[in-house]
Amino acid sequence: MSVPPEALQYATRESKNSVEQGMALAPKFDADGLIPALAVDHVTNEPLMLAYMNAETLRMTLALGQAVYYSRSRKEIWHKGATSGEFQIVKEIRVDCDQDALVLKVEQLGGGCCHTKAPTCFYRKVDLEHLAEGLVPLERV
Amino acid sequence: MSVPPEALQYATRESKNSVEQGMALAPKFDADGLIPALAVDHVTNEPLMLAYMNAETLRMTLALGQAVYYSRSRKEIWHKGATSGEFQIVKEIRVDCDQDALVLKVEQLGGGCCHTKAPTCFYRKVDLEHLAEGLVPLERV
Repeated sequence: MSVPPEALQYATRESKNSVEQGMALAPKFDADGLIPALAVDHVTNEPLMLAYMNAETLRMTLALGQAVYYSRSRKEIWHKGATSGEFQIVKEIRVDCDQDALVLKVEQLGGGCCHTKAPTCFYRKVDLEHLAEGLVPLERV
Repeated sequence: MSVPPEALQYATRESKNSVEQGMALAPKFDADGLIPALAVDHVTNEPLMLAYMNAETLRMTLALGQAVYYSRSRKEIWHKGATSGEFQIVKEIRVDCDQDALVLKVEQLGGGCCHTKAPTCFYRKVDLEHLAEGLVPLERV
């Protein structure tokens, strides 16, 4: 890519109006320095996984054109696919009104995103038809 | 609804295997007692908003069939639409492998979900075509 990550800058979050109506990325990172990013399939919009980025890995994602997360459990940069081949090619990055959440539309390589070998991490849903007193039932999608 | 929220129970998170393969909802709430929930349009899967639920409001969502979040800024239960009419009718609730994230497929009432009056909170995307040194440009979708 032509732009190195460190050359990318975030706008300052000057006001509610600048954040909501501004046309420069001004992400809000939480107390741990993270922003949630939901990856969805770029064709179907079906959800693939939710992970987190910090300021550095969001810059890397932008510069590389592939999803780079920050692993909260391993406390390290997580270039998705670097070990599994399950790279996520970034087609679009959406940001919400207050810029504290991202949605990545990606092309998922390698057949799936989940370590369980399911094509999506969201392979279960609540079985709303059988909701009753007691445990909340799930079903496969 | 036939099931009161307080009659719904979450499974205990006994093991990695039970969480990933179990067929009962065993959500992981973070240190603040919250789980992120991305609401998407139930027909197009287009992202609408990202908000958070606690154990109580997730039960309320299940029992009511409408999205009930927990407002981090106001520190209170947030029945989406109660003041605006922008209720979200829950069609499906997906949970991910480690059960620390939700995706709600909803019918958005009232014309939109965003307080800015946009139909979706994700009304901007990164202008990847014009990515260059400096501020990261956004464009309207």
